[in-house]
Amino acid sequence: MGPDPAVAAVRLAVRRVLAGRPPGAMVLAACSGGADSLALAGALAFEAARSGHHAGGVTVDHGLQEGSAGRAEAVVRVMAGLGLDPAGSVAVTVGERGGPENAAREARYAALDEAAVRLNASVVLLGHTRDDQAETVLLGLARGSGTRSLAGMPPESARRLPSSLRERLDAPGAVEVSEPVAVRYARPLLDLDRATTRRACLAMGLDPWDDPHNDDPAYTRVRVRHQVLPALEDALGPGVAEALARTARLLRDDAEALDAYAARAYADCEIAAAPGDPAADAATAPIALRVADLAELPRAVRTRVLRTAAIRAGSPPGTLAAVHVEEVDRLVTAWRGQRRVDLPGGVRAFRRHEKLLFGPADAGS
Amino acid sequence: MGPDPAVAAVRLAVRRVLAGRPPGAMVLAACSGGADSLALAGALAFEAARSGHHAGGVTVDHGLQEGSAGRAEAVVRVMAGLGLDPAGSVAVTVGERGGPENAAREARYAALDEAAVRLNASVVLLGHTRDDQAETVLLGLARGSGTRSLAGMPPESARRLPSSLRERLDAPGAVEVSEPVAVRYARPLLDLDRATTRRACLAMGLDPWDDPHNDDPAYTRVRVRHQVLPALEDALGPGVAEALARTARLLRDDAEALDAYAARAYADCEIAAAPGDPAADAATAPIALRVADLAELPRAVRTRVLRTAAIRAGSPPGTLAAVHVEEVDRLVTAWRGQRRVDLPGGVRAFRRHEKLLFGPADAGS
Repeated sequence: MGPDPAVAAVRLAVRRVLAGRPPGAMVLAACSGGADSLALAGALAFEAARSGHHAGGVTVDHGLQEGSAGRAEAVVRVMAGLGLDPAGSVAVTVGERGGPENAAREARYAALDEAAVRLNASVVLLGHTRDDQAETVLLGLARGSGTRSLAGMPPESARRLPSSLRERLDAPGAVEVSEPVAVRYARPLLDLDRATTRRACLAMGLDPWDDPHNDDPAYTRVRVRHQVLPALEDALGPGVAEALARTARLLRDDAEALDAYAARAYADCEIAAAPGDPAADAATAPIALRVADLAELPRAVRTRVLRTAAIRAGSPPGTLAAVHVEEVDRLVTAWRGQRRVDLPGGVRAFRRHEKLLFGPADAGS
Repeated sequence: MGPDPAVAAVRLAVRRVLAGRPPGAMVLAACSGGADSLALAGALAFEAARSGHHAGGVTVDHGLQEGSAGRAEAVVRVMAGLGLDPAGSVAVTVGERGGPENAAREARYAALDEAAVRLNASVVLLGHTRDDQAETVLLGLARGSGTRSLAGMPPESARRLPSSLRERLDAPGAVEVSEPVAVRYARPLLDLDRATTRRACLAMGLDPWDDPHNDDPAYTRVRVRHQVLPALEDALGPGVAEALARTARLLRDDAEALDAYAARAYADCEIAAAPGDPAADAATAPIALRVADLAELPRAVRTRVLRTAAIRAGSPPGTLAAVHVEEVDRLVTAWRGQRRVDLPGGVRAFRRHEKLLFGPADAGS
């Protein structure tokens, strides 16, 4: 008799990710103790023993709830019981930047980055499911910032290590690391739903922890989960989470294609700074683009090129919004002599004849 | 004292569309008698008198409700009172194809097409608002079919006339028409919300009709309006409709760019049928694409090329789904000797060496 179908589904998903890893590589499961990541940890322990990989587990103690250290220790015991070795916990301090959810996420990933480097992990597995993906798409929809924010979480990704972490780990006495510049993450469960991970836990005899934060309506994601998705299912019929996840996949393809076209277009439009050329003086305007070339691009590509130019000139990606880029676009497509657009981060876009320049805010006046 | 701000906003929106029309051209407002299209009709009558355009109005009697003919006549009287000339109604018979909302829409546009041709209208104005756009995006989201279905309604579009209508109008005795092949539509109010059109009606002394269908939860759109959007506003805060409309605009740009790249890529990948070439015999497989060229495209572009090929080979766009195209894509990217994929409409995609062919279902076996 084979395993429970839910267990089989979770194991198969993990096996597919392991198949791409070198023999003997260390694979880490990030585990909160909730049903999704607990099922993931159980499946990783099972599959790694068969595929010849090392499997470890790490849990992050966010320190946001009474008794969180004890909870983290309990998760470590469960992971160790599953056979994950090493199994450990990392305590973090959650700041306030960007709201509570964002700050907790940032602290969590920083801790996972560091654990991955210290353990020389080939990849860190995350327990996000199709339901998480659907929620992410809806959260991105509300931001109204287009394809990239609707594209949800990628099945595989890499986080570049911050230089502070790289320096700390390179310091004398630190654990020796084989020069990692990025930590790889994978989300094997993105095609499975929460009901499956819960059934898998039950069938594996694992007792998931229900984080009270997951029901706290103070969190936007919780409101999306408990109010918006049920309203959507109610209005549009079942299968909404699946449709949202499919949308995310299609839009991720779109975003990748358009980013690639934009990277090529950027190189075509860019004017290399010539010494002594006052109109493209690297000191006042480090970036210069040819208006005639910009004007020929489809708008979706042109706005991506303009966004890249603004960011390279120093505008912070997080605050540079679609409306700013649209205003810069009018310097190309609806030019009636207006000279400049001021952008976040003290950056200014300005037009000089057939060139569009990006520089510090005191330039181009 | 200027007009009420809501009236000014609706008039400005209409004025912008009129600015692009030749002097003396006929502009039609499609008017149901509801607040959105009534405000539109009022603004068109006002603006056209100043801009030197002819303004007419047409209302469609769908015959779906008791007393609908009387309602249509009442709308005609209101339009005539506003100064729209001609002001008329067209009765249609709503079929059942594609569900009640789809069938009503098809019948309505066919009637508007015909009215536009008979009156030689330069453009037909539609009263869709930002709220309608937000609903359309959410309806598209639930279909899970990607960018195009999330891109909502375009501010300007053209509907090709069906050949049956063209022939009928060309028949002896029919009104002479200056060879239109398409009817142009514009949606001037897409950046305004319903509250604005309602205020504008009040300020213009117009009494909008509240169609009971707009509150009938049997319609998916009504459930999205009354259940999903409020749940989204509740969970994510105000401004959701605006964010959805902005998303639609950005995704429409994306869709246009990707469609343009795909059209170019299609031409690059296509193998012209050579007489006597058995692998690209126009009789068995009218369409042949080079696998090596396909493989180099970004997936978002390749899947659009494959979709186009399937449709040109006879697969109906309405039933050809993303999953079908993904399966065809595997003949390119994950070929392990599988020969063919059967598609809706009796079309078959099959691989023969370095060619991907599309033909009738009895080909390629």
